[in-house]
Amino acid sequence: MTKRLSELAKLVNGTLVCKDDPVISGAASISRAGDSDVTFATSTASLQQFMDSNAMAVVTSEPLLREAGFTKPAIVAEDPEAAFVVIAETFKPPIRRDARGISERATISPTAELAENVVVYPGAVIMGGVKIASGSVIYSNVTILENCQIGCDTQIFPGVTLYENTFVGDRCTIHAGAVLGAYGFGYKSASGQHQLSAQLGNVLLGDDVEIGANTTIDRGTYDSTTIGDGTKIDNLVMIGHNCQIGRNNLLCSQVGIAGSCTTGDNTVMGGQVGLGDHLDVGSNVSIGAKSGLMQDVPNGKHMFGIPARPARETMQILAHQSKLPAMRKEFRALTTQVEELQESVRGLTVDRIGSLSKKSAA
Amino acid sequence: MTKRLSELAKLVNGTLVCKDDPVISGAASISRAGDSDVTFATSTASLQQFMDSNAMAVVTSEPLLREAGFTKPAIVAEDPEAAFVVIAETFKPPIRRDARGISERATISPTAELAENVVVYPGAVIMGGVKIASGSVIYSNVTILENCQIGCDTQIFPGVTLYENTFVGDRCTIHAGAVLGAYGFGYKSASGQHQLSAQLGNVLLGDDVEIGANTTIDRGTYDSTTIGDGTKIDNLVMIGHNCQIGRNNLLCSQVGIAGSCTTGDNTVMGGQVGLGDHLDVGSNVSIGAKSGLMQDVPNGKHMFGIPARPARETMQILAHQSKLPAMRKEFRALTTQVEELQESVRGLTVDRIGSLSKKSAA
Amino acid sequence: MTKRLSELAKLVNGTLVCKDDPVISGAASISRAGDSDVTFATSTASLQQFMDSNAMAVVTSEPLLREAGFTKPAIVAEDPEAAFVVIAETFKPPIRRDARGISERATISPTAELAENVVVYPGAVIMGGVKIASGSVIYSNVTILENCQIGCDTQIFPGVTLYENTFVGDRCTIHAGAVLGAYGFGYKSASGQHQLSAQLGNVLLGDDVEIGANTTIDRGTYDSTTIGDGTKIDNLVMIGHNCQIGRNNLLCSQVGIAGSCTTGDNTVMGGQVGLGDHLDVGSNVSIGAKSGLMQDVPNGKHMFGIPARPARETMQILAHQSKLPAMRKEFRALTTQVEELQESVRGLTVDRIGSLSKKSAA
Repeated sequence: MTKRLSELAKLVNGTLVCKDDPVISGAASISRAGDSDVTFATSTASLQQFMDSNAMAVVTSEPLLREAGFTKPAIVAEDPEAAFVVIAETFKPPIRRDARGISERATISPTAELAENVVVYPGAVIMGGVKIASGSVIYSNVTILENCQIGCDTQIFPGVTLYENTFVGDRCTIHAGAVLGAYGFGYKSASGQHQLSAQLGNVLLGDDVEIGANTTIDRGTYDSTTIGDGTKIDNLVMIGHNCQIGRNNLLCSQVGIAGSCTTGDNTVMGGQVGLGDHLDVGSNVSIGAKSGLMQDVPNGKHMFGIPARPARETMQILAHQSKLPAMRKEFRALTTQVEELQESVRGLTVDRIGSLSKKSAA
Repeated sequence: MTKRLSELAKLVNGTLVCKDDPVISGAASISRAGDSDVTFATSTASLQQFMDSNAMAVVTSEPLLREAGFTKPAIVAEDPEAAFVVIAETFKPPIRRDARGISERATISPTAELAENVVVYPGAVIMGGVKIASGSVIYSNVTILENCQIGCDTQIFPGVTLYENTFVGDRCTIHAGAVLGAYGFGYKSASGQHQLSAQLGNVLLGDDVEIGANTTIDRGTYDSTTIGDGTKIDNLVMIGHNCQIGRNNLLCSQVGIAGSCTTGDNTVMGGQVGLGDHLDVGSNVSIGAKSGLMQDVPNGKHMFGIPARPARETMQILAHQSKLPAMRKEFRALTTQVEELQESVRGLTVDRIGSLSKKSAA
Repeated sequence: MTKRLSELAKLVNGTLVCKDDPVISGAASISRAGDSDVTFATSTASLQQFMDSNAMAVVTSEPLLREAGFTKPAIVAEDPEAAFVVIAETFKPPIRRDARGISERATISPTAELAENVVVYPGAVIMGGVKIASGSVIYSNVTILENCQIGCDTQIFPGVTLYENTFVGDRCTIHAGAVLGAYGFGYKSASGQHQLSAQLGNVLLGDDVEIGANTTIDRGTYDSTTIGDGTKIDNLVMIGHNCQIGRNNLLCSQVGIAGSCTTGDNTVMGGQVGLGDHLDVGSNVSIGAKSGLMQDVPNGKHMFGIPARPARETMQILAHQSKLPAMRKEFRALTTQVEELQESVRGLTVDRIGSLSKKSAA
């Protein structure tokens, strides 16, 4: 498929800026764009990168274009990336899966209640007492155990497992392989044996929550492990039993949160961050990638490091660490200087005593 | 559902301690309990927390109650948490799934041997030569490849994959998405190409083993990767090929153990711990969360840090690290002092030489 | 099954070195071998370990055997481990799964195109527009969404999910539970809400790629997330959106690579390594286990640590860190010495001034 650049400009209500009207065959980011592709630029640097690239044309903003003052073909749009998305979708239209109701190859308990326009793919297994609201899509090979409740317009991708009593809100996305509601890792140890704690709680997701592929969230011991509205969780994250994650958090890949932690709203954790158990983390906190948190964090703090400290402190410590070998050398040099001084002073003292004796002798 | 507190006391052979006999509508941990809920307290601190909470009543022990000397409704029990579990189960009875034999929608090889009361859910696939002993439950969309053997009363939750020849003991629990027996990550590299090593071994779990959701255990190269009786493994853990994990270990979430490691009995690893390959870790060892182990560990040691050292050493190093910026300042101040001393001593020496010359001149 | 050692020697074109011709009942690595097992040794140390073991016989090389000069039964082969693999396979023949075409219990879209000898197991779900080339095997409960393309002789183990438009090359192995093509974790945050970025890209694997169990690779935003030919990825690894991983890389377990990173060829990352986003890593780079990379790395470098630095620097820093407590003590001692010196010099100066005054008085 090809389009004239003018057609694409029209599509996004943008302004065409070019002498001719080139034929465009695709849309790609600058570093991947071929010589008949359109790309986009939202900064002076990326517009310069476009100039040096093979890309045929760019979607950008008026101020950037004016500043650059160049002549390669462009579309000027108010929100260049949003306009580019529309153009890119023209070339790679997202898959529209045919809504097909409930596959005959899905297994649905007679006591499950599914709204009329719920879609269930082959191989999905939905147990007794489950309720699924309208517009939700259950992909293939998903298992939903007893008494789960799923809101409307929620997507559950292939191979997900929801253990019994899991609650999922509206407009959630749960990616492939995620497991919600497995047993919490709590044991009482007696004479070397480990006895599993009670597993009477469940997992509860708010609305607009996104759960990454192969992420696991354990059920609470007696109550719910909860994920607040609007919180987004990346792949391979572990949320322990009894945690209460606030609203609009962003938890990056491979984060691990031990049992009974809480977070406020709008808190962000970088990749591979770990939290010890029973920690309370405030709102608007950010925790740098790979940090290991061992203490509570008040609102608004930026933490980093193993163990996590206020980020500025950790950066100072890291800077000093890198100077340790040099400091050690300096330290040795200083020690030598002090030894030499001691020697000199001893000499002076002896001399003084000598001169004193001479004086007294005199 | 509601219950009188006296009914609940009777249920757990506890003693009712209250003026009236309140109506209870649920059971929850203290921080989540509403004003008609019963909760439990096993420490002075948690009993105080109960007093300050909305909870209607508490299950606690006689000595704690006596010490606190308060008047809110209580049930006195010998093991308060155990009693509370029984009460909580009254309000939230665990799901009893109907044992239904083998689903017609499961696929069982004619050469597989399943004991009479084995339960297999829809979508499970069981290949040739597999043997499953009595009382075991295979949930939906589990795949069990050729010649696996599974003991009695073992639960395998949805979406688990057991590669060929995997052995699972009695009373094991394998949570959703776990993968046992995938290829070990061993390669011989020749002229830039990586050639996979032999994959002739398998995975062998003892009795009473628990495997967390989405955990992976790779098969041995020639022999078995083994997990000892009573060992509990959390979610998203990786156990490399040829490892031999001892009995009653506790491995927390996201632990990664490289190939050919061994552990003794009763060893504990915190979350996100990593072990290099071919390490031997003793019995009763504990390794703090996020540690990176690079050496063998004898019995009974408590290790911590990256790289892991005896925990006390690491704690000292961390304490000193946090003082590095201050130490650097002190070091600079000391350097200045030494320079001043050098200046003074130089002055004194010059003076002495001067006075000596004067003397000699005299 | 038992074999004479002479039969096994013949099988591998090896030379029998023993007085009698013992009966062998199995093959195992040295530490696991029983007294009627054959094992192998490829170093002086392992040959010594064999001598001290229960194992009946060994496969080894001529030079090693000559050097050791012992008399236990042996087979001499040019490549002892390769010969041992052949012998071990005699005792534990790898499973040969019956090629059975397409299971009636698999669900294949009428618009999917599968080559004639493709094998599809029960419970696999293959959506519209998918193309699978000859010799490939799709195990049970795999889901392949729309328009994916899979090369020839590729194995996709149980429970894998390929999102739409995923491309997989020839001779690839994708282990159980892996998820390719889930949404990239990119959000624009406006007034506290997180808006998911475009998800128009896909995942593209080259030829001879191996993907570990429960590993996740996210799709690109507008373009492909790519994995180069011959690259091997271990279990529970996370590759973020837009990454371009080069050829013949080895990425060990639990590595996490944030979005838009690139690597060259033959690069190796140890377990639990983490990379920040938008980093460019060269060819022939190695990054030590548990490192946290925060900067680009040129070709051929060996990086290590959190943050990752050239490995030699990190090793120096670690060595100095472990001396910090001792250094602190020395520092205090030096401070005391300097204070004493200051006292002495003050005394000398006072003395000098005294003697000067005396002189002037004189």
